[in-house]
Amino acid sequence: MPKNQSLHAPVTGSVVVPVILSGGSGSRLWPVSRKSFPKQFWPLLSDRTLLQETVLRGMAGGVGRPIVVCNTEHRFIIAEQLREVGVTDARIVLEPAGRNSAPAITAAALLIAEENPDAIMWVMAADAAIQDEAALAQALTIAVQAAATGHVVTFGMKPTKPETGYGYIQRGAAIEGIEGAYHVAQFLEKPDADRAAALVQDDRNLWNSGMFVVQASTILSEVARFEPTVHACVSEAVAGRSTDMDFERLAEDAFKRSPDISIDYAVAERTDLAAVVPGSFGWSDIGSWDALWELTPKDADGNAVSGDVFLDGARNCYVRSDSSVATVTGVEDLIVVVTNDAVMVAHRDRAQDVKAMVARLTAAGRPEAVRHNRIYRPWGFYESLIQGDRFQVKRIVVEPGQKLSLQKHFHRAEHWVVVEGTAIVTRDAEQIMVRENESIYLPLGAVHRLENPGRIPLTLIEVQSGPYLGEDDIVRIQDDYARN
Amino acid sequence: MPKNQSLHAPVTGSVVVPVILSGGSGSRLWPVSRKSFPKQFWPLLSDRTLLQETVLRGMAGGVGRPIVVCNTEHRFIIAEQLREVGVTDARIVLEPAGRNSAPAITAAALLIAEENPDAIMWVMAADAAIQDEAALAQALTIAVQAAATGHVVTFGMKPTKPETGYGYIQRGAAIEGIEGAYHVAQFLEKPDADRAAALVQDDRNLWNSGMFVVQASTILSEVARFEPTVHACVSEAVAGRSTDMDFERLAEDAFKRSPDISIDYAVAERTDLAAVVPGSFGWSDIGSWDALWELTPKDADGNAVSGDVFLDGARNCYVRSDSSVATVTGVEDLIVVVTNDAVMVAHRDRAQDVKAMVARLTAAGRPEAVRHNRIYRPWGFYESLIQGDRFQVKRIVVEPGQKLSLQKHFHRAEHWVVVEGTAIVTRDAEQIMVRENESIYLPLGAVHRLENPGRIPLTLIEVQSGPYLGEDDIVRIQDDYARN
Repeated sequence: MPKNQSLHAPVTGSVVVPVILSGGSGSRLWPVSRKSFPKQFWPLLSDRTLLQETVLRGMAGGVGRPIVVCNTEHRFIIAEQLREVGVTDARIVLEPAGRNSAPAITAAALLIAEENPDAIMWVMAADAAIQDEAALAQALTIAVQAAATGHVVTFGMKPTKPETGYGYIQRGAAIEGIEGAYHVAQFLEKPDADRAAALVQDDRNLWNSGMFVVQASTILSEVARFEPTVHACVSEAVAGRSTDMDFERLAEDAFKRSPDISIDYAVAERTDLAAVVPGSFGWSDIGSWDALWELTPKDADGNAVSGDVFLDGARNCYVRSDSSVATVTGVEDLIVVVTNDAVMVAHRDRAQDVKAMVARLTAAGRPEAVRHNRIYRPWGFYESLIQGDRFQVKRIVVEPGQKLSLQKHFHRAEHWVVVEGTAIVTRDAEQIMVRENESIYLPLGAVHRLENPGRIPLTLIEVQSGPYLGEDDIVRIQDDYARN
Repeated sequence: MPKNQSLHAPVTGSVVVPVILSGGSGSRLWPVSRKSFPKQFWPLLSDRTLLQETVLRGMAGGVGRPIVVCNTEHRFIIAEQLREVGVTDARIVLEPAGRNSAPAITAAALLIAEENPDAIMWVMAADAAIQDEAALAQALTIAVQAAATGHVVTFGMKPTKPETGYGYIQRGAAIEGIEGAYHVAQFLEKPDADRAAALVQDDRNLWNSGMFVVQASTILSEVARFEPTVHACVSEAVAGRSTDMDFERLAEDAFKRSPDISIDYAVAERTDLAAVVPGSFGWSDIGSWDALWELTPKDADGNAVSGDVFLDGARNCYVRSDSSVATVTGVEDLIVVVTNDAVMVAHRDRAQDVKAMVARLTAAGRPEAVRHNRIYRPWGFYESLIQGDRFQVKRIVVEPGQKLSLQKHFHRAEHWVVVEGTAIVTRDAEQIMVRENESIYLPLGAVHRLENPGRIPLTLIEVQSGPYLGEDDIVRIQDDYARN
């Protein structure tokens, strides 16, 4: 069990199941966060990734097996990140397509209800930050009490500024018998600046954190009431789910028929059961580099710095390099983020517009907009080191005990040089052990497979040669990971 | 003969020899310009490098074989860059150590005087820009006339602003019989801002461009008069020079004994023969990224952009990427320069402080401060693609007809995969032809050599394996390029 001392013990008397939604592409934190590897999978505020922090937080507050609902493409990343922090019993539920939060939460509720309809779900996004875990634990205790009496409970953050990036919740009358819980007077859309300034004058108005605490049976009956099609489609998708290794894959056709709708629109803003627990636990959805700057410890000049960075006369800047050395001289209020294939510079006041820049890059067909150079696979990862007209060099790392699919290519030959570890290479009818500082040649058309039989990672350098070197020139003949 | 139409024909009646000084480390244009490959070798303002522009400019104005005086380490770069623009008859004079401009100019003068003491030298730095070549040609015609009558002639730029980065020349009385030439009243050191503002009020005050036009015999007698030790040491170094391939290498001991002194201090500021030709030919020493921004064509928002760059709401910025995509959002007066191993961001007003940043990086032992990842050699270049604990991958490109030294390593084995072109590999007693998509293994200790016998460049991927992978683990047994 990983350490996480700041939350209190599970709430007595109720089964609380953490439900973590891993959605969103996080393009406002580009170039670190990308669709293929969005911000929840990055260690932005600690040594742990946001997903890891979130799951551990959920497990400290809950007692049921955590459920992570995610994009199919991210399943191996999630399994690996959970394994890294010792979480081995999570249910990883795969959405065949993104349909926003109402179908995702409905699916989780149905899975929980199969075992215990009275269990309480604690629904949270995988990519938010909490600064005061103890304050959150207090609020959770109250929320669980309210949920146990049939409420759909939200957390309302006491505003610290007239934020325009969040929706607001206006609390109504206190809920009798549960100190600290309130009925909801109304939900308010994200305001403009003037409206936000007015809203924060009234201490009934709270930021909507997007977290929910609710009994599985309650949310299911409310979804059935307000969005019967969502309920029907997702019920069919859950009933028809298949188990794929450690993953629970929802039935594709049924799930895709579900309307695309958020839980706020589907239920929270329409139900009579809405409740809110106000709190000040430093929640943030880390919606921009500027927000991350605010959350990060800073030097005396207000700079938040990460990686190989040299500053001279910089003030109130966020400077991060995950790659090359970066120097910053004589600037204020600037964000500079460097990855191994992109550099992003923006004024802090324009941090929200990074999203528009990513849209422009995407429209221009730039792979850097959506994918990282390093591609994670269930067996490890690979990255391109250089690409020429008729050749490409990759570094391939295979984790101990893992193997790639049995495959062949029509347009390229490959040279493999093992530089760390030991490989077993299948080449047509042969099986060959290739040791450190040995190489092997795979002619065009050869059926081949790479396996790491050892106890340490296998690193090899692959030199591809041929007229076409795209990833789609691959015929998978057999695959341990059920990929096409 | 390369095209360069903007200068007039050689000045009638005098032999004018262009003398190009390739000194300086250009650290204020880091990270593009570095000690190992400083700014004169980069195409900063056109498709040609500053050195190429300078040599062609000199040849258009002169008739003698051009002389390039340079650091020994840069000799192959210079030879290659001259070859690229069709200059095959230049004399490349190698300084065994940097001793500032007086010894360099004295060496050039001695070499010229061996053939024709009356020849006129046109001395210029390899890394300056000229915007109006026709105006320069006019000034040169006047300067050559003044030099032919025994003057040490400088060019004085009419100031366009109270610049503090240049020294000033105050013109005195007109020289009789040579319209446009003046005696020098005094040389003025680089001023502070107040003094500069005062200086530019008086139209006798001109920027010192650092270019000189002078007869070889004149400069030699003045050096002998004011700095006899320089004259004696450099004379000995020139007399004892050796010819090394296409290069003239000055005798090391003698040259190193010469005082380290600029031609301004040694002669120009002390001689009675100083003259100045005022002009407005848009000279700049490109002393900072801000200066380069001023010289570069800009978009409607004042941005000068080069490479893979996307802007949104940027104004008056210089943004250059020689590597990754760079995005810049909502900033003004910013310099952003990206290379494949460094990112430099600075306010335009602080552009001069890049030099101090490079000094900091140098003090921190950072190779990026002084060297590029791509290393040029007489036979081509190599660059490291990735370095691990016990392995390194390099891309090696060998030009047609070239070969590396016969060598061996004590601590590493090498795999070579040819991805473009054809190699002949010597491995101990064997000679092996390795074609595209073939590979060869060189065990630790094997005596080996790589050669490109073909008509197109040879590209190979080298995978090194071993406990020590430093460049100094090399024993050269034979080398066509006379290296140790």
